[in-house]
Amino acid sequence: MPQEFKLIDQYFLPLSDSLLPGELGIGDDGAVITPPLNHQLVVVTDTLVEGVHFTGDASPSDIAWKAVAVNLSDLAAMGAKPGFISLALTLPKNEQAWLTSFTEGLVDVCRTYHTALIGGDTTKGPLTITVTAHGWVEQGGALLRSGAQLDDVIGVSGYLGDAGLGLRLALNQLTENEQARLSSVDIKHSLDALNRPKPQLEMGRVLQVYANSAIDVSDGLLADLTHILERSNLKLNLKGCEEIGAEIYLESLPLSPAMRNWFAPSKEWVLPLSAGDDYQLCFTVKREHWNALTLAAEKQGLVISEIGKVIKNPGVVIKQNQASEQIVNGAETENLGYQHF
Amino acid sequence: MPQEFKLIDQYFLPLSDSLLPGELGIGDDGAVITPPLNHQLVVVTDTLVEGVHFTGDASPSDIAWKAVAVNLSDLAAMGAKPGFISLALTLPKNEQAWLTSFTEGLVDVCRTYHTALIGGDTTKGPLTITVTAHGWVEQGGALLRSGAQLDDVIGVSGYLGDAGLGLRLALNQLTENEQARLSSVDIKHSLDALNRPKPQLEMGRVLQVYANSAIDVSDGLLADLTHILERSNLKLNLKGCEEIGAEIYLESLPLSPAMRNWFAPSKEWVLPLSAGDDYQLCFTVKREHWNALTLAAEKQGLVISEIGKVIKNPGVVIKQNQASEQIVNGAETENLGYQHF
Repeated sequence: MPQEFKLIDQYFLPLSDSLLPGELGIGDDGAVITPPLNHQLVVVTDTLVEGVHFTGDASPSDIAWKAVAVNLSDLAAMGAKPGFISLALTLPKNEQAWLTSFTEGLVDVCRTYHTALIGGDTTKGPLTITVTAHGWVEQGGALLRSGAQLDDVIGVSGYLGDAGLGLRLALNQLTENEQARLSSVDIKHSLDALNRPKPQLEMGRVLQVYANSAIDVSDGLLADLTHILERSNLKLNLKGCEEIGAEIYLESLPLSPAMRNWFAPSKEWVLPLSAGDDYQLCFTVKREHWNALTLAAEKQGLVISEIGKVIKNPGVVIKQNQASEQIVNGAETENLGYQHF
Repeated sequence: MPQEFKLIDQYFLPLSDSLLPGELGIGDDGAVITPPLNHQLVVVTDTLVEGVHFTGDASPSDIAWKAVAVNLSDLAAMGAKPGFISLALTLPKNEQAWLTSFTEGLVDVCRTYHTALIGGDTTKGPLTITVTAHGWVEQGGALLRSGAQLDDVIGVSGYLGDAGLGLRLALNQLTENEQARLSSVDIKHSLDALNRPKPQLEMGRVLQVYANSAIDVSDGLLADLTHILERSNLKLNLKGCEEIGAEIYLESLPLSPAMRNWFAPSKEWVLPLSAGDDYQLCFTVKREHWNALTLAAEKQGLVISEIGKVIKNPGVVIKQNQASEQIVNGAETENLGYQHF
């Protein structure tokens, strides 16, 4: 019997064990799940491809973690509780060491975020991992991109730009001077941000109560904030209301100690503004809910930062020292037309 | 704006239009779906890879059809009504003609089987298509592989082996003599069976009422019947019951006119017995329900054939002219360890 069959039985099968009586995970033509009463199902899909989303020498364990985490991040942005995932794994050969490491990462991320693996498919081909994640929100309670309102505060969870710094580290793109400014803790922090992103599920649940709109920062703050504005303007247009835009205060962008150390002399804002893969949540919330939101977040040990506000004029204005710096209309991303939809 | 964005807006977006008020398809971090009352969710995933599941010159429209159809076939085997799919499309370049043809097939299969497209991901990389399909069954009503019982009739829908014949045609593996025996209608029938499989969703709904177990014939009759026996024996073992096996009557295997024409002199049973990709349903049903099942199927214009029965001895016995021909223990498949799970 091929090794992989054992892997499925030995490692994948136990990841179905959080299912309820009457539910069915791995082993049949499909999985069977009982929806919780008065809840809606949230479904998200993301693919990681070797050579595009990770390099050939990436740790299989990290690849598995990230493949699941980026999907859970989309659930977080919808305010959903994670439920279960399916996994489509295309890999060139059945290599025991690789699969064992991959499975360790998979078990790790599924256990950490209480997510069952309910089935999937393994096929031969170039290394590609597609995860479809499923979560639950109270009926009518999904947090959408489209709810931003004029005068909303714009906030973000955690730090921005760390995964971008991690990518520069991983690709050996830092100068000697830049490297020298980073401690070993900074380096670990940045690489972890890149390779082991933490989906902000608890934050999403708090935002689901208070926020008007949210998105996860996968393409970069400016690009993702632009997605919020686009979707919200579509909705405002339908209602016959005027379009909205955003202003962002550079000095308010939350920077980690690692980013501050790298950043100090250069003040290169491109990473916190435009680097992808941070998987923090960007959101808008009514001014009068800001304090309650901050308190609710703090209660769970979560940090949020006010970084701007929703304004009348379409587009994104970036302000530094109170002055307008530049106006960004539809932040450009580097995905060449490929997109999550 | 890249062309693909238009494709998503122009073609993919309308495939969400069957959603209900309060549901959400393409356009946010995830889709939001309201489960029908007293139903369970059935989830299946299958991947098609270029060079493994189809050749580089396959019609993009057929690829899209098949990528969705093989998943709907898994829903059919569970007795589920199709609901919605997500699509992860990895493709090497944004080529308008390819994408337009692919999208035509996608629209075609989704409309034919009343299935909404609720979101997905497009990424750059080697051509790989993963579909995750979702359906609904009445609470506790899913049709499983594991329910086969001693003395059940073994049945199959439609014809067996046509997709295998289509594959030989597509790969130019037929001799001149074999080719000469096939009419143009036979050739079209076989290639359609390979490229445009029809998921047996109506059959699955009928079986859900009458059958004890079912599976879709994707790996070949013997391999898939073996899956039924394995899962049923696991369950019988847990109950302390004796294991079961199956006998199959070669003369009863349902053959299409195309297969009969090809088959006549050679009597090569390998295609109906072992060729994959037919996506018919193989099932077991109590003898006393056979007539009611046949009537219910006929009422919907569906054809089923009795091809064997569940017996005491483990393994699969193939009988010809009443005599045992060979005993197959765990039919071998050619997937080299890659599997749907």
